[in-house]
Amino acid sequence: MSINTFGHLFRVTTWGESHGPALGATIDGCPPGVALDEAMIQQWLDRRKPGQSKYTTQRREADEVRILSGVFQGQTTGTPIQLMIENTDQRSKDYGDIAEKFRPGHADITYWQKYGIRDYRGGGRSSARETAARVAAGGVARAALAAMLPDLRITGYMVQMGPHKIDRARFDWAEIETNPFWVPDTVAAADWAAYLDDLRKSGNSVGAVIEVTARGLPAGLGAPIYAKLDTDLAAAMMSINAVKGVEIGEGMASAALTGVDNADEISMGNDGRPVFSSNHAGGILGGISTGQDVVLRFAVKPTSSILTPRKTITKSGENTEIITKGRHDPCVGIRAVPVAEAMMACVLLDHVLLHRGQVGENRGHIG
Amino acid sequence: MSINTFGHLFRVTTWGESHGPALGATIDGCPPGVALDEAMIQQWLDRRKPGQSKYTTQRREADEVRILSGVFQGQTTGTPIQLMIENTDQRSKDYGDIAEKFRPGHADITYWQKYGIRDYRGGGRSSARETAARVAAGGVARAALAAMLPDLRITGYMVQMGPHKIDRARFDWAEIETNPFWVPDTVAAADWAAYLDDLRKSGNSVGAVIEVTARGLPAGLGAPIYAKLDTDLAAAMMSINAVKGVEIGEGMASAALTGVDNADEISMGNDGRPVFSSNHAGGILGGISTGQDVVLRFAVKPTSSILTPRKTITKSGENTEIITKGRHDPCVGIRAVPVAEAMMACVLLDHVLLHRGQVGENRGHIG
Amino acid sequence: MSINTFGHLFRVTTWGESHGPALGATIDGCPPGVALDEAMIQQWLDRRKPGQSKYTTQRREADEVRILSGVFQGQTTGTPIQLMIENTDQRSKDYGDIAEKFRPGHADITYWQKYGIRDYRGGGRSSARETAARVAAGGVARAALAAMLPDLRITGYMVQMGPHKIDRARFDWAEIETNPFWVPDTVAAADWAAYLDDLRKSGNSVGAVIEVTARGLPAGLGAPIYAKLDTDLAAAMMSINAVKGVEIGEGMASAALTGVDNADEISMGNDGRPVFSSNHAGGILGGISTGQDVVLRFAVKPTSSILTPRKTITKSGENTEIITKGRHDPCVGIRAVPVAEAMMACVLLDHVLLHRGQVGENRGHIG
Amino acid sequence: MSINTFGHLFRVTTWGESHGPALGATIDGCPPGVALDEAMIQQWLDRRKPGQSKYTTQRREADEVRILSGVFQGQTTGTPIQLMIENTDQRSKDYGDIAEKFRPGHADITYWQKYGIRDYRGGGRSSARETAARVAAGGVARAALAAMLPDLRITGYMVQMGPHKIDRARFDWAEIETNPFWVPDTVAAADWAAYLDDLRKSGNSVGAVIEVTARGLPAGLGAPIYAKLDTDLAAAMMSINAVKGVEIGEGMASAALTGVDNADEISMGNDGRPVFSSNHAGGILGGISTGQDVVLRFAVKPTSSILTPRKTITKSGENTEIITKGRHDPCVGIRAVPVAEAMMACVLLDHVLLHRGQVGENRGHIG
Repeated sequence: MSINTFGHLFRVTTWGESHGPALGATIDGCPPGVALDEAMIQQWLDRRKPGQSKYTTQRREADEVRILSGVFQGQTTGTPIQLMIENTDQRSKDYGDIAEKFRPGHADITYWQKYGIRDYRGGGRSSARETAARVAAGGVARAALAAMLPDLRITGYMVQMGPHKIDRARFDWAEIETNPFWVPDTVAAADWAAYLDDLRKSGNSVGAVIEVTARGLPAGLGAPIYAKLDTDLAAAMMSINAVKGVEIGEGMASAALTGVDNADEISMGNDGRPVFSSNHAGGILGGISTGQDVVLRFAVKPTSSILTPRKTITKSGENTEIITKGRHDPCVGIRAVPVAEAMMACVLLDHVLLHRGQVGENRGHIG
Repeated sequence: MSINTFGHLFRVTTWGESHGPALGATIDGCPPGVALDEAMIQQWLDRRKPGQSKYTTQRREADEVRILSGVFQGQTTGTPIQLMIENTDQRSKDYGDIAEKFRPGHADITYWQKYGIRDYRGGGRSSARETAARVAAGGVARAALAAMLPDLRITGYMVQMGPHKIDRARFDWAEIETNPFWVPDTVAAADWAAYLDDLRKSGNSVGAVIEVTARGLPAGLGAPIYAKLDTDLAAAMMSINAVKGVEIGEGMASAALTGVDNADEISMGNDGRPVFSSNHAGGILGGISTGQDVVLRFAVKPTSSILTPRKTITKSGENTEIITKGRHDPCVGIRAVPVAEAMMACVLLDHVLLHRGQVGENRGHIG
Repeated sequence: MSINTFGHLFRVTTWGESHGPALGATIDGCPPGVALDEAMIQQWLDRRKPGQSKYTTQRREADEVRILSGVFQGQTTGTPIQLMIENTDQRSKDYGDIAEKFRPGHADITYWQKYGIRDYRGGGRSSARETAARVAAGGVARAALAAMLPDLRITGYMVQMGPHKIDRARFDWAEIETNPFWVPDTVAAADWAAYLDDLRKSGNSVGAVIEVTARGLPAGLGAPIYAKLDTDLAAAMMSINAVKGVEIGEGMASAALTGVDNADEISMGNDGRPVFSSNHAGGILGGISTGQDVVLRFAVKPTSSILTPRKTITKSGENTEIITKGRHDPCVGIRAVPVAEAMMACVLLDHVLLHRGQVGENRGHIG
Repeated sequence: MSINTFGHLFRVTTWGESHGPALGATIDGCPPGVALDEAMIQQWLDRRKPGQSKYTTQRREADEVRILSGVFQGQTTGTPIQLMIENTDQRSKDYGDIAEKFRPGHADITYWQKYGIRDYRGGGRSSARETAARVAAGGVARAALAAMLPDLRITGYMVQMGPHKIDRARFDWAEIETNPFWVPDTVAAADWAAYLDDLRKSGNSVGAVIEVTARGLPAGLGAPIYAKLDTDLAAAMMSINAVKGVEIGEGMASAALTGVDNADEISMGNDGRPVFSSNHAGGILGGISTGQDVVLRFAVKPTSSILTPRKTITKSGENTEIITKGRHDPCVGIRAVPVAEAMMACVLLDHVLLHRGQVGENRGHIG
């Protein structure tokens, strides 16, 4: 895996900065003959787009994607697909202070120390704006998956904002698209709106936990030992800005379980396929999918760009304070939802191709 | 990253099964001129070796490593290093049942479905025995790091067994090597011994949380966007058998923090280097090390091979029960400690080389 | 190496088709702090640009490169550099016939058989137009090399057109830039002009041999066994359209030499560095540079798009004939010269970084 | 591609030195369910084994391969295959001189300058002994190909020794296995025997040209732009010790052809598949196989270890002479034949898997 690329066969390289002329994704290894046009990608970008509610940054970006290569007469050709999104609302003047001061909790200081040069406008390459390119790439992956695995559904949603968790008893898939937080719990949606409004007004921000589920994934995807499906998913999620933890199935809570409790017992289903009594494993055993839902969660830390003053230093080594004005997300976790779905789509397609390449189709039959 | 390989420049490929003639690691990209002999690697293998207390599997393996290539006259030559560990205690008869039945929570079923053939003896490739190869590779990485970053210390330890967490107030680095659990808390060590003994006798097993800290790592290691230091560390840990969650710094708990609380404020230290008021970030910002301690945690699920009967199916599709006899770890998390240290060492060396390759040395000076 | 990417650390992915909206190169792993602007890249593109003499295609492309990312305030930032060249002169109507018939000697038929879809306009992805992206990437590599190896000079030139070879006794570096063939021999330049004119008028085309020399490269670059400097150079040249053979140093002629004749004898030079009596090796031994000039040659086959009718088949399987009208190069080898220089620059920079990453600096001293 | 690894999906890493305890190949990505045992690999190693005639080195190595992993009950499991060959005849005393002096034309000097340490016994890692590992890996590739492409035949043979070329009019496939030079021309076999005997006795050595043909390869294998089939084949051959030139189809001679002559005209065959009037392309167009024979050639330079004294220097920088005693091949090209076949097998299998991964099966139908 090279620095700005991920994937084994379906390989995505993202490029671009927050305030440069454009950003995008270069996709190599997409299967040929996949129906694809810009609208099919745009629908996913529109879900991530900033400025859609008062809970996300007020930066106004059309986030219009252009396909510059790899598609001919509405189908992928099997050659590289270049997706470009032009930046249109680069209000650079907001960022003057950042050029000299480092925001605590932000990549400002590490980029500077490493490279000795950075595009400080809007965080440059470290900006969450880079995730637009991931969502665009995910749109291509979804198009290919739609043809290869028509029953697959990838759904992301928030399960925690700050200290507030959803009530799993109220979980409703249909709710997810109806509120600005992608939360499957109506009551939580209302509570969180009030909570986040207060935080935002006080110049503060907050973290979140996102869950992503893939339903309808067949058994057999993934590979030992360093290309495990869970390894690649964990890397994909951890690579998203501000993510500090990733869990598969029971995740960190599996530490507290006994082997008796953790066993997802197996029996034969009526359709002649294995049925599991539970899904502590999150749909993955030994790095390979079981055919159950793949379930992962990740934590997003609070935005470091806040209006509350924090102590910091300047490039020239003076102690000072910083207030980050500009247009920032009070809970950047909200916009991480479509990003995580996109990353899941890319990883799953990659493993579909990798599996087909090495194995062809599942070889071990049960019953 | 290919299937059984990890790393960008310092690349490790592990090979071998639990009950084959041998297992090992093929290491490519090690710097030349590193002092290295078998004893330097053996010391780390001895820490992971099974059968050292009643809390780990009673399989007796010498785990003696042989260097087959890449070292001449006590120094690495810069060419591939082959490390081989012969298996000596393969009591295969214990595993007869596994050939036909799938252990719930184990890779038995997914390997079978994917490949249609698997070495079922001891779990074959999916056995935790594979981690011996990682520890050996980690020994090489440690030798190279010792020369390049003499102040670096990588230390793993358990912070939770089942529901029992350590008391951070009692944290003592010196305790870690004095008890069978690598726990930095004497009281916890005693409590856990009793707890695990009971579990083991009842034919059960339990999960754990391991923390690994790298002290003395300079700022500037890591890279955006898909080769972030935290991304590579998360992948490295998630690739270890039975790991279900990975956290950097605050990890999943960062979701509950506000931006004000999460900010690790910065000031200039007396030595002219930045000092941070806290380390919520776990030593990594934007995927690049800050110079603070790198701190990560991961959860290991309970061993799925237990003496308590669990419902399962056979290869031919019949419902049945399974009891896994044989020699298994009641808390496989214990032996994950030296494995995680080894993975951390490999990832850090890889990033030291990657940084030197692309950047040379840190270019951005403060003050 | 993924499908459309080359390089270990300095990684270049090209994208785009002959008649799509744009083409370009995504560059990952460039060192930070390299002085770079569009003019520095444009100078190399201008050398490759079509339509500059009657000996190359009359397609008129400005070939203006835009840097979309990775450069800030005139310096590379260490993050991905996106180079885009918009296509402006896509006279698609010339290509109607190609959609249904396959040109003998062209990738038309293999792309079709493999992918079942291809952008037939101008050859789509298989067009030599893709090499503009390589030249742009080479411009970035040259900028980085200028800072790291200021004495390095990479020079390409033609040494054979059709059956006509240059006279090495007349070799003059200064001649190369003075004629449309990049040939270091004035007499050959004049002869070839007449020869090619005749060929062009007769609706035919012809092959060529290009030589590329890197002067001023230090010893120690390259690596065993599969990342040898000669291996990577051979792959780089063979990946250029229409290339059918690659030679290092004596090349194919080394088969006819004896060991006594082939030995480049070594003595100590007055500057305390090894001096070689000859350079049969082409500057590379065991895959690693010796400090002598690196010398390679490659053969370019004649353009397959010719006005002379050739027998072929249609997609629907009918026997027919084809004449390729449109704007084609009578000797595509001419424009391969700047492309080959660019590929050499990319490979050398990649090995400079790889060497620095693994080894740091040369460790074995003589004398 | 990492330093000592080649392949995209079928990835081979070789390790080991001439006089270390063992050498071998680590193979990742082999399909599961391939029938494989040691004898199937040994048959290929036996063809390359030294000491089989007076025309190759008199070193006596059993070259017995052991499969240490990845095979269970006679079938590959899809997990890494470790192949080990123990060195048994390391007569190190022959090499004392080499430790201090550099052989002209040998990697001695470049390894030393780069790494500052090298296993000088028998050339260490730069020894042609490394190619045994390639042949073993090729045996695995052949086993997998036998199942997937039963009609495929990969055959290598010498077409030139020193200045002496075969007479293509006498070409006879059946001759190849009947003489010590793998030459398909009885007359040449006899002539070369006398020629090489004289050379050997005079303490000299000579180069050679090897041709490798793959018959029965389907159309559609390969990929643009940097993973072209010819690119990967060229790299594979150039990575073999002492290779200085690689040609596909017409190779370097294509420079002298006109477009009219070079066109392999196409018509529909009686079996409904395209037929070509000639094969100047060597079976590859645009990096993708045409279904014709894939034909490549490469030149091997003469062995640099010769008994005739040559001028050189010592590590301490003194001018001196060197005579290389020991057991060396007077024409190392002979033993390159099975090595080249093995490399071809590995590359073809890799592309079979890559094609299946990305495309599935050929999608474009003719007629």
